[in-house]
Amino acid sequence: MDDNPTPGRTIRRHAADDRGWDEVELRPYKEDERGLFRSVTRQVLFSDPRLAGELRYFEVAAGGFTSLERHEHMHAVVILDGRGHCLVGREVAAIEPTDLVTVPPWTWHQFRAGRGVPLGFLCLVNAERDRPQLPTGQELAALRADSAIAAFLSGDPD
Amino acid sequence: MDDNPTPGRTIRRHAADDRGWDEVELRPYKEDERGLFRSVTRQVLFSDPRLAGELRYFEVAAGGFTSLERHEHMHAVVILDGRGHCLVGREVAAIEPTDLVTVPPWTWHQFRAGRGVPLGFLCLVNAERDRPQLPTGQELAALRADSAIAAFLSGDPD
Repeated sequence: MDDNPTPGRTIRRHAADDRGWDEVELRPYKEDERGLFRSVTRQVLFSDPRLAGELRYFEVAAGGFTSLERHEHMHAVVILDGRGHCLVGREVAAIEPTDLVTVPPWTWHQFRAGRGVPLGFLCLVNAERDRPQLPTGQELAALRADSAIAAFLSGDPD
Repeated sequence: MDDNPTPGRTIRRHAADDRGWDEVELRPYKEDERGLFRSVTRQVLFSDPRLAGELRYFEVAAGGFTSLERHEHMHAVVILDGRGHCLVGREVAAIEPTDLVTVPPWTWHQFRAGRGVPLGFLCLVNAERDRPQLPTGQELAALRADSAIAAFLSGDPD
């Protein structure tokens, strides 16, 4: 009963080339012509039918940003490397390693690396979850009506 | 719909005194007379009824160790700071930052800091889960029959 019933390895190491973890598929975000995201990689570190949550690692290159989106499911984020800003609802905040960020349901959010520095973070999410919604043109205009959010979206946070 | 419906703060910072995160209760493990754990603190970083998983941060002082236990639910662990060894099933391994450790169901496990260095790690767990079992004297003797496990449990891993 105390033997390891999981196929695959119990302990996995970060790759020597510093591009992420061994034996974990590195998934580049595709580029988006609307500019809703750019230069992000994603790795699912833990996912198992016996785990109700999933833990993913995102790395945003300098000047890159994750998708501006919202959804029913929550995000729980731990900043691990680098520096940047995030938008959560109407709040724009500088973020750095060890910061904890909670993204509640149906809340617009985006994570942006600094211009000269990447941003790496872990994100806990429910294994079963709904698909993200992207903003309509009208919703994007409503967000940009807030000058702090407009500055964030243009890559020039206060 | 995009306002923040969560009471409490969206972004939380690590405390300046380096004892953990602000506004997150720091829970010392109690000491155990059987020596099954020692010198560990625990912080639940993310827990919400809308999250099926929970993310906790454990810090094991130099020479300390977490409870030797097993249970139905899984653990998914990311080593963040320091150095040490872990036991998972019958495997003893050195662990260091960025290592990923999977603890399958019903698998004996323990995390030990080095003698002169603490060990900090994140642990993803299902929000709903069963209570851990501690080993009986007989089960402990069976584990110690393996010389590598005996060395690990005595704080002298190979």
